[in-house]
Amino acid sequence: MKIEIISTGDELITGQILDTNANWLCQQLFSQGLQPQRLHTVADNLNDLVALFIESSQRSDVVLVNGGLGPTSDDLSAQAAAVAMQVPLVLNHSWLKTMEQKFAERGRVMAKANIKQAMLPQSSEVIDNANGTACGFSFTFNQARFYFTPGVPHEFKLMFSSQIWPDIATRFALNNKLMQYKITTFGLGESAIDDLIQDIVIPEQLHLGYRTASPEIEVKLISSDADAIKQVAQQIELKLADYMVFTSDESDTSAEKIQHLMLAKQATLALAESCTGGMIASNLVAIAGSSAYLDRAMVTYSNQAKQDLVQVSAETLSNHGAVSEATAIEMAKGAQRSANSDYALSVTGIAGPGGGSESKPVGTVAFALATPTETYSQMLVLPGKSRTMTRKIASAIALDMLRRHLQDLPVCGHYDFAPEWQAN
Amino acid sequence: MKIEIISTGDELITGQILDTNANWLCQQLFSQGLQPQRLHTVADNLNDLVALFIESSQRSDVVLVNGGLGPTSDDLSAQAAAVAMQVPLVLNHSWLKTMEQKFAERGRVMAKANIKQAMLPQSSEVIDNANGTACGFSFTFNQARFYFTPGVPHEFKLMFSSQIWPDIATRFALNNKLMQYKITTFGLGESAIDDLIQDIVIPEQLHLGYRTASPEIEVKLISSDADAIKQVAQQIELKLADYMVFTSDESDTSAEKIQHLMLAKQATLALAESCTGGMIASNLVAIAGSSAYLDRAMVTYSNQAKQDLVQVSAETLSNHGAVSEATAIEMAKGAQRSANSDYALSVTGIAGPGGGSESKPVGTVAFALATPTETYSQMLVLPGKSRTMTRKIASAIALDMLRRHLQDLPVCGHYDFAPEWQAN
Repeated sequence: MKIEIISTGDELITGQILDTNANWLCQQLFSQGLQPQRLHTVADNLNDLVALFIESSQRSDVVLVNGGLGPTSDDLSAQAAAVAMQVPLVLNHSWLKTMEQKFAERGRVMAKANIKQAMLPQSSEVIDNANGTACGFSFTFNQARFYFTPGVPHEFKLMFSSQIWPDIATRFALNNKLMQYKITTFGLGESAIDDLIQDIVIPEQLHLGYRTASPEIEVKLISSDADAIKQVAQQIELKLADYMVFTSDESDTSAEKIQHLMLAKQATLALAESCTGGMIASNLVAIAGSSAYLDRAMVTYSNQAKQDLVQVSAETLSNHGAVSEATAIEMAKGAQRSANSDYALSVTGIAGPGGGSESKPVGTVAFALATPTETYSQMLVLPGKSRTMTRKIASAIALDMLRRHLQDLPVCGHYDFAPEWQAN
Repeated sequence: MKIEIISTGDELITGQILDTNANWLCQQLFSQGLQPQRLHTVADNLNDLVALFIESSQRSDVVLVNGGLGPTSDDLSAQAAAVAMQVPLVLNHSWLKTMEQKFAERGRVMAKANIKQAMLPQSSEVIDNANGTACGFSFTFNQARFYFTPGVPHEFKLMFSSQIWPDIATRFALNNKLMQYKITTFGLGESAIDDLIQDIVIPEQLHLGYRTASPEIEVKLISSDADAIKQVAQQIELKLADYMVFTSDESDTSAEKIQHLMLAKQATLALAESCTGGMIASNLVAIAGSSAYLDRAMVTYSNQAKQDLVQVSAETLSNHGAVSEATAIEMAKGAQRSANSDYALSVTGIAGPGGGSESKPVGTVAFALATPTETYSQMLVLPGKSRTMTRKIASAIALDMLRRHLQDLPVCGHYDFAPEWQAN
């Protein structure tokens, strides 16, 4: 089956955004054992769109078009489709009504400009959009089935998964379903993982791949043979045990894994964050139900805040500095005391680009984990990273310490990219 | 001038990696006033590559090909170019010598497989690769000039900047540089913005576009005529004044704008976050230098935390509930008192998917802003959004209240998507 993906939008062609939608679509297709033959990106330009629709209609079975369904004048996908097929745009009364309802439900009056979103090429079938006002639509043109979706990621993804993919699977009688199993790791780079598992024999019907979801790296096993996946996964998990955070059987994110572990223990958590600045709290709160174990977080950005909110002593701050294991330990203990929680995590570091010194360069970060019995700490260096990446890695290391403790592993793991800090 | 970009590689077509090279190339071209007409991504497949090279040679002036120049059998770009042009691959002795030197310098012996990297389509010109063993090459085929580069980002980028772009600029005598101006808005949907500014006459040499950077929407003006941009921008800014957060002249993000305003006032800020769970703090801390005004943030997720950290009274919590203007006001005042700061922002709401009630459905969020003289509050409803989007919009509204106050605007703005909460 020949598939093409067409992404439209000036913001893509001018490099303002990365085409994450096409990337997601490729992953979805790949997980079903399919690969698009071509991906195209074109600007919001009528002639280019028309030419591409005609070309692809003549050589492919499925054409997935993303973007250009908004209400404004630079949204041209429907019009281009109509021109390509030499049919008129026709008002879809049913979708117009749906749109008016959507606006009414939110207590708003629909703008006139939105009517354009119900103007579809003649004979199109509507693809419902549960999350927005732009409907998708599909039609057959020459030898290809075309599917149009809006560019807003959460609208487009739901439409593809719930309506478009089932339609394609039925239409083309697809049944060679691939399964995917993911092992999410933290602490090693891709080539180091590759080295560690290179002795494992990968059967031909199984595809092994990597995906970097900074700072984590996913090892993906894809096959239509569930037993093959299971067998290889077991071997890989053994080799990567020290770096494995979670598998796709357990959860989707580290935060979700932490939540599972904390709820299982019926334990509570508090946070004291400095350079991460609320990032850890925000990641945990992203998971519904986090209030069952997360009591509070103190973003103690200034020294005064560290003293006021988590009772770091002035002596510790002046003797060891705000970025030190001593300060991190007092932050964690103070947070634990403040919340009367079972556990507390703390992070204090130099996210950069300024603020570094010879002895404590940018990227130096101290961590502590207070548990009901003991407090653990470490100070690492994350060299050569952007401010955002330093904060992301620091957040991930803090959560990794807690996860490791909850799973009865040594609290301080090995991270290839984060050597221990050494006093000069 | 017509430009096409061709990216090759299975890892792109299977969605394993995002095409950051093409994105970077688009940015480079755009900064020179150019837009590629099409971007293509194809798998490591000889027939597809050959067909695409022939097609693009017939319709474009410049074709930039990235990837497929490695030593292994799935690197097919040079071979496909030779087949497309019906010329042989010829050993380039000079590049072979360069490669052997590169290996020798690293104390390694060149593998036989690498010889392939010196086999170029007849009559190609070599593009030097200072950072790697794969040379690039260029040739003219039909009406197009082709440039081939390896996929390794730091190799490809240097080759483009130092050799390919200068060659294109000379060959096509380019000097027409495009400028871009962005107005970032918050509070209206794309269609409502379009309605508001539809009377403004857009000159032909100016491109007006929108980009959704949820929950903000950018209005973009692109032209090589700086005066035209300025004139249209003034009219748009007048119409959108109530919704304009910042322009590209001022800053890149709302957080940066807040930082500018706070530093100009030499004022300090504290935060008390519940449903946003540290997201506001994390957004502000993302900007280097934020410690100059942000003292602390309290993520008071539990009721106990609200009482402990920002002294919300038990009476307020039981009489009005955790999600109420009364609680938000006490949170903001408590945070202001705790940090002894000039300003404090608070957010408390129901992010969902659970936790809603008939009188306070999911999406109900209360906000307060404490200033040196007064405390402002509002309670809004954000219906039909995901947990993450609810938290993002709530974070943006909180910052918008502060920005509006700092700019002497009414603290409570109008947000199309967030009606005021009404008691049943």
